[in-house]
Amino acid sequence: MGLILGIDIGGTDTKLGIITPDGDIVERDRIPTRAKEGPEAVARRVQGWLEEREEKHHRINVAGVGCAGLIDGVAGHLYVSPNLPGWKDIPLKRIFSTTLSLSVIVENDVNAAAYAEYLKGAGKGTRHFICITLGTGVGGGLIIDGKLHRGMHGFAGEVGHMIIQIDGPQCTCGRRGCLESLVKADAIKARATEAIHAGRESSLKDIDGFEVKDIAEEALNGDGLSIEVLAETGRLLGIGLTNLIHIFNPEVIAIGGGIAGAGDFILDPAYEAVRENLMDNALSDVRIVPAELGNSASFLGAALLAAASEGTASG
Amino acid sequence: MGLILGIDIGGTDTKLGIITPDGDIVERDRIPTRAKEGPEAVARRVQGWLEEREEKHHRINVAGVGCAGLIDGVAGHLYVSPNLPGWKDIPLKRIFSTTLSLSVIVENDVNAAAYAEYLKGAGKGTRHFICITLGTGVGGGLIIDGKLHRGMHGFAGEVGHMIIQIDGPQCTCGRRGCLESLVKADAIKARATEAIHAGRESSLKDIDGFEVKDIAEEALNGDGLSIEVLAETGRLLGIGLTNLIHIFNPEVIAIGGGIAGAGDFILDPAYEAVRENLMDNALSDVRIVPAELGNSASFLGAALLAAASEGTASG
Repeated sequence: MGLILGIDIGGTDTKLGIITPDGDIVERDRIPTRAKEGPEAVARRVQGWLEEREEKHHRINVAGVGCAGLIDGVAGHLYVSPNLPGWKDIPLKRIFSTTLSLSVIVENDVNAAAYAEYLKGAGKGTRHFICITLGTGVGGGLIIDGKLHRGMHGFAGEVGHMIIQIDGPQCTCGRRGCLESLVKADAIKARATEAIHAGRESSLKDIDGFEVKDIAEEALNGDGLSIEVLAETGRLLGIGLTNLIHIFNPEVIAIGGGIAGAGDFILDPAYEAVRENLMDNALSDVRIVPAELGNSASFLGAALLAAASEGTASG
Repeated sequence: MGLILGIDIGGTDTKLGIITPDGDIVERDRIPTRAKEGPEAVARRVQGWLEEREEKHHRINVAGVGCAGLIDGVAGHLYVSPNLPGWKDIPLKRIFSTTLSLSVIVENDVNAAAYAEYLKGAGKGTRHFICITLGTGVGGGLIIDGKLHRGMHGFAGEVGHMIIQIDGPQCTCGRRGCLESLVKADAIKARATEAIHAGRESSLKDIDGFEVKDIAEEALNGDGLSIEVLAETGRLLGIGLTNLIHIFNPEVIAIGGGIAGAGDFILDPAYEAVRENLMDNALSDVRIVPAELGNSASFLGAALLAAASEGTASG
């Protein structure tokens, strides 16, 4: 039976997984990315890792690479990546297929994660599925009629940069009022900090440089401000989700990423905002659920996409 | 050679067309809708129209119905229609297929128009195409990888109710800041009226109860306010289009509908806003163009969808 290599190139670590064509993970690991040494160095380090696993290596003939950034999945080209400084206009597919001597596909990491969630996680059994990641940024991947939607260049799915508040807060993309600028980790922290500066009482005041996970924890402990801040984030997220529901009419939207840990404190108000904002009750059977695959989603999805692109990965 | 009947049920008129499987229009007509007599009466009137065309009628074995409203295209069910008072929870497909003794598909009118523009109009030759209609409302239809995207229930494509300005103007849907509330005909007129009340000079002051077509005409005559009002509308439309480009990465977006007559006065600023707001230049080869098929788009698209659903309409 053939195996598939999945690679998820992150800003700090590169996650590696060897999977079966059914998506079962046979082995997983992480190695440092060291982005500034360049993509060829990353590919060589992956090749070294593979060579240490001679028996499995022998059975792999295809690999999928997930990577943050604006990626043309068809050409396998990385235009620019916010997480990998200096990686600009990189022929990722060529570099990895040459170095690994494998057939390689390249995909945006959130698209890859969406595909994994669709096949093996929160989107299992659906045909129309959206996966959104909340963290330092906001990303999205769309499954339409059972296929990952890439669009003309493979850039589709940038739901984080959907403007929902013209003249809203500054976004890292240079514009204002993108969904990301309103619900990303820094926006949540800023919302809490601002309220505290305005004199609100909160147990967060005792935590130096609190993070979203602290806000989630204090919410769990009953801190009113923490609960409110997460609820307001959920409400704003819900407006973005409503837009997506009106545009796509999906069956399930899964929410993952670093701040998904705040769980129901965000998702419940998000769902409430969706219900309030939907044009018709007929739409309200959309399910909004946590993503299921965590950190494995991107390498797993990249590998599954590679398997699908081969028709079958068995050989 | 088989023929196909296309039906576009509008608030005032129902447009009818008989087309070839290639989409050539053999005959076209319009009959009054008289919505308050109910959908069965409309179907019977269409049947009467067909019976007067005995030779062609004989060659038709499939019909497509386009209709404004929230429609489940799979079940052929109309949930509710803003243009057809009293039409609520109507099994349109069953009514038309029974009355006409034909195989029938039912689709939202803008989805149908998008499909026609994709096959025979502004979207010809693309795989990823969006069609938007601007008029008393704002509608949209999405072609994804060569297929009309319907979503779980067939409600997809409601781009007019994408919120782009939280707490923006009241929308007819009950919410605030939908794209429609900012760029529909009434919003354009309100923008001009408000400026005039605020003391702005404009040749519009001489036109009692001016319409968008008057604003377009005065813009053509060089009226500064008219030009500004249409440009501001274009800028807001451009923000909505940018969202759609970031989400879908389409090749072409076509703009049709009643106020498309204002043409470049809206489209040029819209395209400028898109270029300003895109995250990356790589996306800027999207084309934003006028729709080409005018009033024929919906009945033609409904007929073409019916033909496609049959596999082939020849018989």
